[in-house]
Amino acid sequence: MAPFARVAIIGLGLIGSSLARAVKGLMPGVALAGFDRDPGVREAVARLGLVDEVAPSPADAARRADLVVLAVPLGAMRAVGEAVRDALAPGALLSDVGSSKQAVIDALFDLVPAGVHLVPAHPVAGTEKSGPEAGFAALFTGRWCILTPPEGTEPEAVSRLADFWTRLGSRVEVMDARHHDLVLAITSHLPHLIAYSIVGTASDLEGVTKAEVIKYSAGGFRDFTRIAASDPTMWRDVFLMNRDAVLEMLARFSEDLSALQRAIRWGDGDALYRRFEASRAIRRAIIDAGQDTDAADFGRTHPDAPEPGPERGRP
Amino acid sequence: MAPFARVAIIGLGLIGSSLARAVKGLMPGVALAGFDRDPGVREAVARLGLVDEVAPSPADAARRADLVVLAVPLGAMRAVGEAVRDALAPGALLSDVGSSKQAVIDALFDLVPAGVHLVPAHPVAGTEKSGPEAGFAALFTGRWCILTPPEGTEPEAVSRLADFWTRLGSRVEVMDARHHDLVLAITSHLPHLIAYSIVGTASDLEGVTKAEVIKYSAGGFRDFTRIAASDPTMWRDVFLMNRDAVLEMLARFSEDLSALQRAIRWGDGDALYRRFEASRAIRRAIIDAGQDTDAADFGRTHPDAPEPGPERGRP
Repeated sequence: MAPFARVAIIGLGLIGSSLARAVKGLMPGVALAGFDRDPGVREAVARLGLVDEVAPSPADAARRADLVVLAVPLGAMRAVGEAVRDALAPGALLSDVGSSKQAVIDALFDLVPAGVHLVPAHPVAGTEKSGPEAGFAALFTGRWCILTPPEGTEPEAVSRLADFWTRLGSRVEVMDARHHDLVLAITSHLPHLIAYSIVGTASDLEGVTKAEVIKYSAGGFRDFTRIAASDPTMWRDVFLMNRDAVLEMLARFSEDLSALQRAIRWGDGDALYRRFEASRAIRRAIIDAGQDTDAADFGRTHPDAPEPGPERGRP
Repeated sequence: MAPFARVAIIGLGLIGSSLARAVKGLMPGVALAGFDRDPGVREAVARLGLVDEVAPSPADAARRADLVVLAVPLGAMRAVGEAVRDALAPGALLSDVGSSKQAVIDALFDLVPAGVHLVPAHPVAGTEKSGPEAGFAALFTGRWCILTPPEGTEPEAVSRLADFWTRLGSRVEVMDARHHDLVLAITSHLPHLIAYSIVGTASDLEGVTKAEVIKYSAGGFRDFTRIAASDPTMWRDVFLMNRDAVLEMLARFSEDLSALQRAIRWGDGDALYRRFEASRAIRRAIIDAGQDTDAADFGRTHPDAPEPGPERGRP
């Protein structure tokens, strides 16, 4: 039996629409309601048949649902929480998919009605694409989903949500929200910030043209542009909402980069070699942990991912 | 008719062995000699049948060849150049595949005998793997190969080498060595340095364990570890040999990163959004230029790439 009978998803972008697809595919008995504030997205979701009911408002989607998932940017959590609070049924579980968790607790904790369980969640999965057309059901397969229940949450509510994500193919971990924010600051937020930054540096040089940067990007730069193509609204909110942890990690990164800079300036080949050699061990550990593969496609080919467009400019 | 009758490749790692495979596949009439200073690599190359003759020394490989390609780390160019100089036949062409070009000219120019043409080259292609088993013939297909002939080089020699790389599937560009070094500093060298650096930062935290970094790497970090798994010797030499251009780009990057840091500290969401939004255009341009694809595997699946190992830890 599925752990919930009626699921509402508010926000139907990449993550929300992938969640809808996964629930439809893996929990066929579950009634699925959805809302997005963009009428074009609502239309696309209806056309694609991703939910049973496209609701006219967040409250209408949430009404009678025993699980309500907010899949909106972090900066919109509070407003959407206010929009659904009166529609939340007693015993219902309110969750989300945001990348920063203390901010979600801060936004929602005081407005959750008595008898409703708040269990924030973060599926650590995504692509650089946005919108409901970019979603796919297998996005969460084999990926971690981190639950960060506030102190005092009923254990049974946490178990139900863990069961839900496990059935969607995820591996579930429960963690303190602040610790989550620290871990994600280094594994996700800082890499994105750096990628955004170097793309800016490259597009603003006088000695090298933008056309040259694009032309010769295969040497490493293009991997950064992929990360830096992620949704700007979502990422703006992540950095504003996880400020302290990101600034802390950024300071450490800058120190370490300065040490490499110094080694280059002084021709210290041994220091460079030691640093480069050590990083290979980390890569090997990530592959062994199943979070990436050695395959040419890095395991990113999902059986039901949307068909890519034709490759252009390649023989 | 192939532009060369006998090709010698000194250094049979990822690039050298890929070149051997490509020549064998696309220019079947060409005699192919190879040398590597590692006896284990020589053995592997003989076993895989990648060249017609595994020579016992660089000079033996180079003798009678009308094209000699040095596929060794930048720091070894001078020594290998000295080892082959007396074996170079009049009219022969001496080239390389190094990622920094002025350094190659500095290392080789004065020891090239009269009547031998020096045309340095840089195929902008590679993977994070190393060694002859990791090579594959299609590595250069659709990728740029940049030639950086020193002033005064005979145009006919440049044309012959351009013809050679074009037949291997590459797109060829001729460029001044110093300009090449500036372009590659931003498109390749700086991204690698940053990737190496953040992997170091992540593996040296007290609040977050290494196990957690590995576990939750799917959020962005794992892409950096892939880049940072590249050959340490090769990259140490790149940074030592392209020092000035790398330090220049690094200084600009640090400035830009500081601006984003400031925006986060002061909660300037508009500045963050503008920067993130602008980077999407660059990504789109790279896909349009055929240097990456929208496909789930980013176009990295080559028809004849080595079979990947089994995926571990994934359902």
